[in-house]
Amino acid sequence: MTRTIGQAVDGLVVKALKTWDMVRPRDRILIGASGGKDSAVMARDLALKKRQGRLDAELVGLHIRNDFSPHELSERLAAEYEAWGIPLVVKDVAVEGRLKPGRRMNCYWCSTQRRTEMIRYAMAEGFTAVALGHHLDDVLETLFMNMMRKGELSTMPPVVCYRKYPLRIIRPMYLVEEKQVIELATELGLVSATCTCGYNDRSERDSTRERVEALTGGSSDAKRAILESLRHVNAEYLPS
Amino acid sequence: MTRTIGQAVDGLVVKALKTWDMVRPRDRILIGASGGKDSAVMARDLALKKRQGRLDAELVGLHIRNDFSPHELSERLAAEYEAWGIPLVVKDVAVEGRLKPGRRMNCYWCSTQRRTEMIRYAMAEGFTAVALGHHLDDVLETLFMNMMRKGELSTMPPVVCYRKYPLRIIRPMYLVEEKQVIELATELGLVSATCTCGYNDRSERDSTRERVEALTGGSSDAKRAILESLRHVNAEYLPS
Repeated sequence: MTRTIGQAVDGLVVKALKTWDMVRPRDRILIGASGGKDSAVMARDLALKKRQGRLDAELVGLHIRNDFSPHELSERLAAEYEAWGIPLVVKDVAVEGRLKPGRRMNCYWCSTQRRTEMIRYAMAEGFTAVALGHHLDDVLETLFMNMMRKGELSTMPPVVCYRKYPLRIIRPMYLVEEKQVIELATELGLVSATCTCGYNDRSERDSTRERVEALTGGSSDAKRAILESLRHVNAEYLPS
Repeated sequence: MTRTIGQAVDGLVVKALKTWDMVRPRDRILIGASGGKDSAVMARDLALKKRQGRLDAELVGLHIRNDFSPHELSERLAAEYEAWGIPLVVKDVAVEGRLKPGRRMNCYWCSTQRRTEMIRYAMAEGFTAVALGHHLDDVLETLFMNMMRKGELSTMPPVVCYRKYPLRIIRPMYLVEEKQVIELATELGLVSATCTCGYNDRSERDSTRERVEALTGGSSDAKRAILESLRHVNAEYLPS
């Protein structure tokens, strides 16, 4: 019996949840609903798990609408969230308007602003976790940007715990590859319902992504081995 | 005033020696003289430092001659070692002959055998350090082979100390790029005097090298940043 792509993604999300102890009983999870495919596939999978009694958590989606991109969460996708049983909250944030004079918009600024708003909202509303849709290719891309630009071995962690607040950032899609997200989103008919940001500042990320594809030859095994290597740091065989 | 390639390589060797405390006063260093360009450039640079009073150590070269490759250390190169004031010892080792029945020759076996012989000789003759000519590109190649094939973050360390014996393996060329080695070897007229092994088992290493070139775009800054990242492991931002 061959596994469907939905089962494969579901299995990898289960593995990530277990490996990094992401969800605790009666968690209240705020899902970062960007309007894109990654968070949509994540939301749908978490909703499925909840409906099947495999996830003991409340799920709410938060969409941060900005002041510079014409794209926003589509009506089609909003209807999907409703069908999945996930209430959707929309908040307007003047991402561009908050820029200090003379500063230009960029992806880093926007993501920081949206992250801050999500965490603020989660705390104010008593959520215990914020779920972000970053997948394996995002993790590797950030790893190599940090290695080659900052000279630091680091990436997005699967779980970030705040010391002062009872809140965690979790990344349930940590082990899912982007090509799997695309395959599942296509099968679910989500692709036309989702969008990518219209702002064009991804040249550095995109070139890093291409470089990672060249390094790994696009091999899933190689990508997963790289991720695994981050969990097996052999300090005796590294320069001090 | 522009730095010559010889000065650039010399500066990087000085930096490696200092960073990892490679040489101690009155060290007796056995140089792994493979017959190739990497160890030749290293031997020449160490000899230069010694002659200029910047290196307080005895230098001896050891060439392990094998039973399967027609290539060996050339007369031209032997004359260079003599001119550098480095006595050269040649030892015959039946690398292929030592294979267990049914096993095929491969680069890993050969390098293990040669390493073992060098260490045995160094111990028997009272050397305190064995210097190997591995350069920055070798280090990165091994790093990515270990990451993508073994799922382990490790590579060749700049210094390996044996617990039971007063002997260290050191890699003075750790910060020198292969293209710098080639440039200096060409300038010194060493290229025609050196050789690469005729045994053809490098397909995996070569493809990894090409992949690392694609990842870094061949950029020296990117390669050096990757090496630097191995010294700045931020465990809080890695998956546990």
